[in-house]
Amino acid sequence: MDKATLVVFNGAGTALEEIKTDIPDLKPGEILIKNLYTTICGSDLHTYCGLRHEAVPTVLGHEIVGEIAGFHPGHNGLDYLGTPLQIGDRVTWSIFASDANSEKARAGMPQKGGGLFKYGHAQVTATDALHGGLSTHCVLKQGTTVLKLSKEIPLKVAATINCAVATVAGGVRLSGNLQGKKVLISGVGLLGLVCAAMCSADGATEIHVADLNGERLKLAEAFGANVQHLLNQNPTLPTDIDVVFDMSGSPDAMEMGLEALTVGGIAVWIGAVFKTRSVAINAEQVVRKLNTIKGLHNYNYDDFVQAVKFIEKNYSKFPFQELVSAEFALTDAESAFNFAVANKPIRVGINIAP
Amino acid sequence: MDKATLVVFNGAGTALEEIKTDIPDLKPGEILIKNLYTTICGSDLHTYCGLRHEAVPTVLGHEIVGEIAGFHPGHNGLDYLGTPLQIGDRVTWSIFASDANSEKARAGMPQKGGGLFKYGHAQVTATDALHGGLSTHCVLKQGTTVLKLSKEIPLKVAATINCAVATVAGGVRLSGNLQGKKVLISGVGLLGLVCAAMCSADGATEIHVADLNGERLKLAEAFGANVQHLLNQNPTLPTDIDVVFDMSGSPDAMEMGLEALTVGGIAVWIGAVFKTRSVAINAEQVVRKLNTIKGLHNYNYDDFVQAVKFIEKNYSKFPFQELVSAEFALTDAESAFNFAVANKPIRVGINIAP
Repeated sequence: MDKATLVVFNGAGTALEEIKTDIPDLKPGEILIKNLYTTICGSDLHTYCGLRHEAVPTVLGHEIVGEIAGFHPGHNGLDYLGTPLQIGDRVTWSIFASDANSEKARAGMPQKGGGLFKYGHAQVTATDALHGGLSTHCVLKQGTTVLKLSKEIPLKVAATINCAVATVAGGVRLSGNLQGKKVLISGVGLLGLVCAAMCSADGATEIHVADLNGERLKLAEAFGANVQHLLNQNPTLPTDIDVVFDMSGSPDAMEMGLEALTVGGIAVWIGAVFKTRSVAINAEQVVRKLNTIKGLHNYNYDDFVQAVKFIEKNYSKFPFQELVSAEFALTDAESAFNFAVANKPIRVGINIAP
Repeated sequence: MDKATLVVFNGAGTALEEIKTDIPDLKPGEILIKNLYTTICGSDLHTYCGLRHEAVPTVLGHEIVGEIAGFHPGHNGLDYLGTPLQIGDRVTWSIFASDANSEKARAGMPQKGGGLFKYGHAQVTATDALHGGLSTHCVLKQGTTVLKLSKEIPLKVAATINCAVATVAGGVRLSGNLQGKKVLISGVGLLGLVCAAMCSADGATEIHVADLNGERLKLAEAFGANVQHLLNQNPTLPTDIDVVFDMSGSPDAMEMGLEALTVGGIAVWIGAVFKTRSVAINAEQVVRKLNTIKGLHNYNYDDFVQAVKFIEKNYSKFPFQELVSAEFALTDAESAFNFAVANKPIRVGINIAP
């Protein structure tokens, strides 16, 4: 029987542990994946540093791309859009698996659906270990949304589709038509950069970006941002913004964003996935300005499809490849985390099958 | 030339002043109204008590119903829905006039449209005095949405359509389909009661109401509410609510409402039209629960149409008439305000042409 190699996280402050495990027999609906590339998301770093807690041992890494290594015999051999799948095909898959017939899934929120499972977040057990990106293999469970990818998309870009890109696609869905709109993006990490690029592709005319880091603001230019606001210099933000996207999770940024909204403006909150102080909201202003605040966590099926379409069309139009500033082997994952913590690049990559 | 009588407000703490003025020649697009009945809204009381400031002298009262007394010769003689209008027809009209071709109006927010004018809120001038409910007449400006009303609707109910009822219709629009939903309404004044009735008519299965006032909670039963929460007794609110409507403007209530929302739940904020402390929001919870907060001030054209339809269909199904617990003559408007301030009824009425 073939073996898989995985790098296990046992808790903050402990060394990552490389182990080998048998590749299990597939269950109905499952697909075996040979992982090709994983990028380390900010959430992975939060867990690695002890700022977020997962049941350990776990396999981190959920921004993954891979190729099909096998199907359960009963699998229908189609991806979510009905495209035939074969062994060797390159695919991306949703960060979550859930019951598509559950109430939340049918209400457009499969990421909160029944039987929810999340790749890169689950505990390793004797029978279920292949569910993270820091691993040579993944077993895709029934209820996972799989999409075939063009092999022309660079692996380091393809890896980000199923987390950062799809989440931003969800945010753009919530924002409505962006044609001719003025947007403000607070927090210029990968989500902010993808958001600038999507807003640009969708015809937004003013794309403001705000961050405490001037280098990141500069980087955003190549992704379509045309107005920069350095937040540690008390910038004067506009007050006629149609859509604010908060990718930072900073209460200061969310409060500033609401002040910047025009009448009828929409704030989409995505970044606030960690504990922090409360956001202080002037409810009278929200009411009189007819503002809307929409929280988004992860994404739904359509968002994921849109993310793939966006990257297929735009992977070379914006310098996404350059955002992975260092690349490591799976056996050197500890160095990848240490490099990411020390240097705070947009992403580091793990090239799993170089 | 005919004279109009109006009751002028010159600032908090001063007596209302009854004056007579000429009825002016109508300008293009204008309609002359003989006011029939005005209910005193909470906002009127705020202004009367000095908690809200308007440019004075002004004519308070914006929940008005009247009948047509004249048209400018160039008027097309149709209401908003194309129904022919004649002198003597009973009508309700939007609390605002604005340019229907302005950007905000075309974006579905005519209440924030260009050239905005609001009845019951404007300064009395030598040439423009007939724009409030505490008056025998109103001149409806171009850009006012006029709707013909059945004379079967009791005047005291008809008067509330163009403020309370239409605003709630807007809130219900923002909440989406209520069939089978669980809703929570915080603040059981007229808006809360209308909201309970609309949720009931729209098929909501659980209609929770929350207030500090037990009598108002009891009153809500007749308007479809089926679960009461007395807020001064540390109630245990549910946590599976689909839609929260806040009519109270209380930060405590808005915070509790967000805690009560289920995944994907929506909070509609309507009541917060006065200054108060900030609302403290747990942004991580809004994000992880995919919650939406929508502020609403006033209403748009469709909301107003829905409000009329709702009252035409339901004015006798719910005890709306009983909500006007005292009635005064126009010449006794001061007593009406004093009664309202002292007794805090849901509404007092001014019967203008008894």
